[in-house]
Amino acid sequence: MYPDISLTDLHQTMETAWEAFLSFRKTSPAQRAALLRRIAHKLEHSGDELIRMAMQETHLPEGRLKNERGRTCFQLTSYADACEQGIWLEARIDTALPERVPPRPDIRKMNTALGPVVVFGASNFPFAYSTAGGDTATALAAGCPVIVKAHPAHPETSAFVAQLISEAVAETNMPSGVFQHVFGASFEVGKALVMHPYTKAVGFTGSFSGGKQLYDWAQQRPEPIPVFSEMGSTNPVFILPEKLAVQSDWLAEQLAGSITLGVGQFCTNPGLIITTESEGLDAFLQALSTRIRAVQPSPMLHAGISQAYQLHREKGLSQPGVSLLSTADQAPANGEGQPTIAVVSGATFLANPQLHKEVFGPYSLVIRCADQAQMNEVALSLDGQLTCSLMATEADLQAHTKLTDIVSIKCGRLNVNTVPTGVEVCWSMQHGGPFPATTDSRFGSVGPDAIRRFVRPISYQNVPQTFLPDELKDSNPLKIPRVENGRLA
Amino acid sequence: MYPDISLTDLHQTMETAWEAFLSFRKTSPAQRAALLRRIAHKLEHSGDELIRMAMQETHLPEGRLKNERGRTCFQLTSYADACEQGIWLEARIDTALPERVPPRPDIRKMNTALGPVVVFGASNFPFAYSTAGGDTATALAAGCPVIVKAHPAHPETSAFVAQLISEAVAETNMPSGVFQHVFGASFEVGKALVMHPYTKAVGFTGSFSGGKQLYDWAQQRPEPIPVFSEMGSTNPVFILPEKLAVQSDWLAEQLAGSITLGVGQFCTNPGLIITTESEGLDAFLQALSTRIRAVQPSPMLHAGISQAYQLHREKGLSQPGVSLLSTADQAPANGEGQPTIAVVSGATFLANPQLHKEVFGPYSLVIRCADQAQMNEVALSLDGQLTCSLMATEADLQAHTKLTDIVSIKCGRLNVNTVPTGVEVCWSMQHGGPFPATTDSRFGSVGPDAIRRFVRPISYQNVPQTFLPDELKDSNPLKIPRVENGRLA
Repeated sequence: MYPDISLTDLHQTMETAWEAFLSFRKTSPAQRAALLRRIAHKLEHSGDELIRMAMQETHLPEGRLKNERGRTCFQLTSYADACEQGIWLEARIDTALPERVPPRPDIRKMNTALGPVVVFGASNFPFAYSTAGGDTATALAAGCPVIVKAHPAHPETSAFVAQLISEAVAETNMPSGVFQHVFGASFEVGKALVMHPYTKAVGFTGSFSGGKQLYDWAQQRPEPIPVFSEMGSTNPVFILPEKLAVQSDWLAEQLAGSITLGVGQFCTNPGLIITTESEGLDAFLQALSTRIRAVQPSPMLHAGISQAYQLHREKGLSQPGVSLLSTADQAPANGEGQPTIAVVSGATFLANPQLHKEVFGPYSLVIRCADQAQMNEVALSLDGQLTCSLMATEADLQAHTKLTDIVSIKCGRLNVNTVPTGVEVCWSMQHGGPFPATTDSRFGSVGPDAIRRFVRPISYQNVPQTFLPDELKDSNPLKIPRVENGRLA
Repeated sequence: MYPDISLTDLHQTMETAWEAFLSFRKTSPAQRAALLRRIAHKLEHSGDELIRMAMQETHLPEGRLKNERGRTCFQLTSYADACEQGIWLEARIDTALPERVPPRPDIRKMNTALGPVVVFGASNFPFAYSTAGGDTATALAAGCPVIVKAHPAHPETSAFVAQLISEAVAETNMPSGVFQHVFGASFEVGKALVMHPYTKAVGFTGSFSGGKQLYDWAQQRPEPIPVFSEMGSTNPVFILPEKLAVQSDWLAEQLAGSITLGVGQFCTNPGLIITTESEGLDAFLQALSTRIRAVQPSPMLHAGISQAYQLHREKGLSQPGVSLLSTADQAPANGEGQPTIAVVSGATFLANPQLHKEVFGPYSLVIRCADQAQMNEVALSLDGQLTCSLMATEADLQAHTKLTDIVSIKCGRLNVNTVPTGVEVCWSMQHGGPFPATTDSRFGSVGPDAIRRFVRPISYQNVPQTFLPDELKDSNPLKIPRVENGRLA
């Protein structure tokens, strides 16, 4: 129904994107903001047909999809605002010093678009991290044309949203090459998109193997390009002893909810729960168990994901020293994900790298550490993470400064007494983290700072006012913040 | 005299750096600024011995070296100021919205140090891009320990400066692992430094082959890391027709000076001069020729560089269609670089990739384009550049908007009526550019923004005030600029 794009058509697509780039890069932030707002408006009014289509393709419930569509519209408008506000432009002006020996010329700098950006949509967020999602919105805000490769798990939803975006592009008088949508279930299409000389950056959300492959291709190009793969994370949650003693029920409720939210199909799903042997532990495990048993299994996104979940869940449970704590009482139907909690000792976890791997789905492994020193060792042994969470009283935090130090080196977001799921769209959000959570810890994929992934600085030395971009003219017609002669103005 | 470090000692060096990182990353910007100022102070008062040593090792003249040392001190103090000013921290605060459904937690974000940084010094800047140079200064400002591999062409100068830095580290009560200095002329040492798991970023200034090799190693690690290689550039200078007609003498003077400055051993040396056939061209070429003939050949940095220059110069001159315009009248002594201007037609340049390559030294190739269209074609055919320059009247700029568009996609710095040599240390400077000028066009190696190469963002969600870094506390004790609830405060 949606055949892969041919390599000839793909080349034509990239030519069209490049041609569009030559004019799109020179549009004003206000023009690009208008485009983003137009897309948001159309998406907001896209009606029930789109939701029904997405429900059918993703098995996600109506309420969740409606919320996610709303979130996607919020992202688009909030990035539109940030685009105009212009912090991301990082404008800097140093005026001439003709009397200095040697004289200093007038120099001005701002960020400028990198070029066409290829976006690989995520299966688990058909709206917010797919066709009109965060990567598309921030690339457009930066002035980069976007080529979306539809996720093969929701092609109709993707095509529907793509149509809305193309209409918005036309209605705001942008060249049609500003946004293009292609299909490609094969390896070859993905590779050809990443390797094409006109591709200047790549956005991806998905598995480690997929994201790392795109990264490796991009580095093998004659001209390497940035790849922002947001891959995976076990999002360890450390429960400290006093907190465990005083709030085991609350912890069980929060964690059971977070582990099973969206059938565990979030990149911030808490896959590891790390505790020390202490008096509250048994009560906590019992409370967690009770809550997990009561969860209704639900259908996962698609057959590939539910089969992978089953496989990795069984692999996890069959490791020596791992025992099952609890599963949902109700047996899962075909394609459903079975909520599951396993338990292992700290020593066993440290000795078995397999247990460090993400199990994508409603699965979490409780690690019982002998003591605080072993908990620190476990923390040290972890890979880079999107998030780490500490469940802790203030006294716990005082008593565990070494642990806090370790996890702050490991993660992009450090939570205290909040579960990792739920990613706010705001300036202060870092959705990213040290490898292998992402391929570039210096950037994140949520919040206005994500625009900066798709730009590079350019300096103008001794360029007459008339020929400077508006962003850098003396009169500051766009009213953006600028560092002028060393001071933030 | 300076044997390569053993792999065992190298591993110990990296262990020491990592240990230092754990405390250095938590020092305040003021503490790190004090360290940078201490280094600057010691370097400023390092006396004539250091200059004599550098003269002997690099063959650079006394005046140049004294200036470069002054520039290096200026870099250190200006990055110290920027470190405290805190724009690079990119602090963002979104306060809790408990009434919202769902409630928003308090979230705060700032930049934090990446980890130990390996710096490969440059041969052509024994001070400003070497041991205490821009990479070292910005990495220290960011909170990253630095391991400098001495450039084999000036080991004594490097060791002398390293000793000053180590003293400054001790005097400001930092752990000694904050700065370490190693020797290694072999391939293996460079590779082991880049591949070591505790290395989190690399700074390099030098040749394409060297910089690209470091980049490739870094990408082949289990955990890829950022490599900032500033490699090479032909820094094309476009002379537009009206400017040529009215100011051929001034152009010849400016260009002859820029081409031969420092025996052409600058990364911003103008290696291509691109003109169209027009009435002023012959007068310009004659004026340029006269000035080049009068230049005294001078010794190059070391035997390797002067041999490479001779080789690449001859290779350039022997290409079909290339003719010699002029050389310095005085024949070069052994080890000296012979100032040389060659000429070629636009069509020949377009057809021969060899002519696009940098010839490191006082060599420039004049490209005579048939017309404006061919000049655009030549511009389009160029690799990514550190700089492009337009020599142009306002009427020329009006008549060449397409050319301006092309070069603004190709370069990190666009000059009008200034030669590319001379890199100001200021906020507005972008010293970097699209590949192959550098391996990461999103960053530059000069100016306070260069600190940002060595940091990544971290978010703190729902973290109590006491446990937040000072940068993010409500009271803003460091008085840094922050985006608070979406507004720059």
